[in-house]
Amino acid sequence: MSDLYEEALKLHSELKGKISTELKTNLESKEDLSLVYSPGVAEPCRKIAQEKKDVYKYTWKGNTVAVVSDGTAVLGLGDIGPEAALPVMEGKCCLFKRFGKVNAIPIVIDAKDPDEIVDFVKKLSPGFGGINLEDISAPRCIEIERRLKEELDIPVFHDDQHGTAIVTTAGLINALKLVNKKPEECTAVVSGVGSAGSSIIHMIRDLGIKNIYGFNSKGVLNRNEVDKYTNPLYKELAQITNNDGEDITFEAAMAKADIFIGVSVPNKVSKDMVKSMKRDPIIFAMANPEPEIAYDDAKEAGAKVVGTGRSDYPNQVNNVLAFPGLFKGALSVHATKITEEMKLAAAYAISDLVSEEELNEDYVIPSPFDDRVAEAVSKGVSQKAVEQGVAKKIVSNNK
Amino acid sequence: MSDLYEEALKLHSELKGKISTELKTNLESKEDLSLVYSPGVAEPCRKIAQEKKDVYKYTWKGNTVAVVSDGTAVLGLGDIGPEAALPVMEGKCCLFKRFGKVNAIPIVIDAKDPDEIVDFVKKLSPGFGGINLEDISAPRCIEIERRLKEELDIPVFHDDQHGTAIVTTAGLINALKLVNKKPEECTAVVSGVGSAGSSIIHMIRDLGIKNIYGFNSKGVLNRNEVDKYTNPLYKELAQITNNDGEDITFEAAMAKADIFIGVSVPNKVSKDMVKSMKRDPIIFAMANPEPEIAYDDAKEAGAKVVGTGRSDYPNQVNNVLAFPGLFKGALSVHATKITEEMKLAAAYAISDLVSEEELNEDYVIPSPFDDRVAEAVSKGVSQKAVEQGVAKKIVSNNK
Repeated sequence: MSDLYEEALKLHSELKGKISTELKTNLESKEDLSLVYSPGVAEPCRKIAQEKKDVYKYTWKGNTVAVVSDGTAVLGLGDIGPEAALPVMEGKCCLFKRFGKVNAIPIVIDAKDPDEIVDFVKKLSPGFGGINLEDISAPRCIEIERRLKEELDIPVFHDDQHGTAIVTTAGLINALKLVNKKPEECTAVVSGVGSAGSSIIHMIRDLGIKNIYGFNSKGVLNRNEVDKYTNPLYKELAQITNNDGEDITFEAAMAKADIFIGVSVPNKVSKDMVKSMKRDPIIFAMANPEPEIAYDDAKEAGAKVVGTGRSDYPNQVNNVLAFPGLFKGALSVHATKITEEMKLAAAYAISDLVSEEELNEDYVIPSPFDDRVAEAVSKGVSQKAVEQGVAKKIVSNNK
Repeated sequence: MSDLYEEALKLHSELKGKISTELKTNLESKEDLSLVYSPGVAEPCRKIAQEKKDVYKYTWKGNTVAVVSDGTAVLGLGDIGPEAALPVMEGKCCLFKRFGKVNAIPIVIDAKDPDEIVDFVKKLSPGFGGINLEDISAPRCIEIERRLKEELDIPVFHDDQHGTAIVTTAGLINALKLVNKKPEECTAVVSGVGSAGSSIIHMIRDLGIKNIYGFNSKGVLNRNEVDKYTNPLYKELAQITNNDGEDITFEAAMAKADIFIGVSVPNKVSKDMVKSMKRDPIIFAMANPEPEIAYDDAKEAGAKVVGTGRSDYPNQVNNVLAFPGLFKGALSVHATKITEEMKLAAAYAISDLVSEEELNEDYVIPSPFDDRVAEAVSKGVSQKAVEQGVAKKIVSNNK
């Protein structure tokens, strides 16, 4: 066991829970008791019974998120069950509070059937302002998120899909500035077309990238072979990628690419492949802990910008840059959903924090501990929500 | 609107949530991040995946309760729905933390069918150490609690049923000392045979009281009329009360009673009825906010001990004396359930805090703000759990 793992285990064993619930008000007298609880509490209850939306006015709903997992795809550990997923969900709740000042509750559920999960989350929803789905295996997670978004009027967000996509897109926006290319001119290879890869493909298309090759372990997605796919995700992605339906190898696609984005397996990309890419290659190699190509190897082979999921190399693609501010912003205006445009607004907010003067090949993404991030993301997201009319709360234009 | 209600509304509107989630550890550096979240968090996950019970070792499960309501029987307000029930559940969570140091999360659910509620709570349970059911209407609450107790291996407790029963029983134990009667010699009238009344009847029977008359709004429960009842609760209670199957009026029953316990409606009991009771009448009149008979009226009519649900009179029967310590104790030994005996242990722990010297007719129940209560209840409950073999955690006898 490495020192890090040993230390983490010790910390978890000492804490027995990384979060706690705390009172926000005094409870030291009969008078306090009669205000916080019976009989005083009846009054906010009556108000909400009369006007349901007042639940945002008198309770924690408006600033509280449920972090929901079934434990089927936890980190790199796979289907380890709800109990074993709890440390991750508690950790996620820590990040929500620390970076977004949002209350978050870990909810690990004993159910795997998508219908049951959707039903459960709908029943859970009255007390929460938003739902963060986490570590649910693909392709179930896609269907679950889609249905919940349709059926609930609070934001639902599967971070494994969209968190990485938002931060990658933010990094990509800045990397493209640096190499002086427009998205419309670029070809991208995306390795890994599960939940994260799917969201990445959607987002970089929204950014303007026209031709994308999506690869799974068996080869390129191809619109001419849609009937062969059993995974509904592949069917969908095949139709928005590989525009000419080429039967192309990974090597050949890399040789046509300006951008490589990996959410797949270690050592997928060789130095020769990087050398074969178009001018000033941009590489986001996010397999964890071993990337598709090591930072140093990619740089040696001529990559201009290299990002990974690791904190010990430059340009770390860390979801924590996105989800706390994203929910903070959505909650602040009581957004009923998180739209594609709001996610893109989050990506731009992150990329904009790197000023023109600071921008360089090892700094296309700000640090997770940059205090400005959550606030900037929140602002971008809430403005977009208001603009799109998915915000329920009236927000002054001067704000 | 009274001043109290106005003040309570103001407080709720300022706080927007009476509880929050907070971090128990630092999260200020990359190193912190790698211990609290990825990659370090993988290690406790792996341990729990290997041995499920280690979830108590590395997460908040062992000290965290879900306060679950469907909003069908909230305070005196009735079926006001899950959103409107949230202020009460948040308040309850405040009490759990303040008095029992137990984390508690309000879960208000959008479901009313007992099957669906049972199913929901089972799916919710992996991340919680206990389930406190709250403000669920009778008789559904009885069935829901019973089924969950059977199917889950964590404590499930419907406070509206048992909280009042435990504290009433505690008060009754001391009141009987004061009037120098044994439970076995006493006859009791219980007015209100819903969820709280049912639990009271069970507990005072466990205490030793042999003859109990249970009344609903239509009259006395009678074992000879079981076939007429549609409410399953009535069927069950009729068979353990009114031993001789008497067709007796409320007035006549009161004239035979040593003890009156009311969880029903205001002004059910007249001064003449109290006068007709056996020597040194004991009255617990807990209809709220107006009791079955006012404290002053009962005393004038000769009652020896009078308890109510109100904080502005002596001997307040307040659930907060029971549930925080009860869960604290059950959680501390990982009890798989809360048994009748553990509830009675809680009642004795509460009554024992009133010393022989202090005991008087206006002090048969300690104050909610008596700091010793939760600890004493916890100790009594955990000892009983170990004694009965429902505790999973090995506890040293020296403790």
